[in-house]
Amino acid sequence: MNQQEIRVTRVDIFGQEYSLRGQASEEHMRLVAALVDEKMQEIAQANPRFDSAKLAVLSAVNIADEYVRLVQEYNDLLAALEGDAVKP
Amino acid sequence: MNQQEIRVTRVDIFGQEYSLRGQASEEHMRLVAALVDEKMQEIAQANPRFDSAKLAVLSAVNIADEYVRLVQEYNDLLAALEGDAVKP
Repeated sequence: MNQQEIRVTRVDIFGQEYSLRGQASEEHMRLVAALVDEKMQEIAQANPRFDSAKLAVLSAVNIADEYVRLVQEYNDLLAALEGDAVKP
Repeated sequence: MNQQEIRVTRVDIFGQEYSLRGQASEEHMRLVAALVDEKMQEIAQANPRFDSAKLAVLSAVNIADEYVRLVQEYNDLLAALEGDAVKP
């Protein structure tokens, strides 16, 4: 596939169909959609009265929480490696 | 603060107020909420007709996309380090 080509992957998230556009593989997009769907199902089960907008926002918050933690871990690891590199 | 203590942070995401509960610092929760709010604003600007549930789902997809990529980079880095470790 051409590097610039935009792929469209149709996925189901919390009972709604979405067309995801991007250069990533279909496998990657399905994994991403499954992660969001799973998080929405999990939050819906614990909070049956939340509407889908609230569920989706809280799912985004939940995933962003894990993302920010991982960014910090990744940066800590890189900093530790740089620290190693300058040791005599 | 006690390690087990649950903190409540009130944040604003796309014009709605949310009470986020968790053990993380208020600074961390505000950073996470700002990331979600920013992503929703960005997608809303490009797609003014999307309702807030769709905007929130697509924001979650967008953040999950970056999260999955970072998990892969982090694992690749760890694998490379382990590769280093077993070199003679």
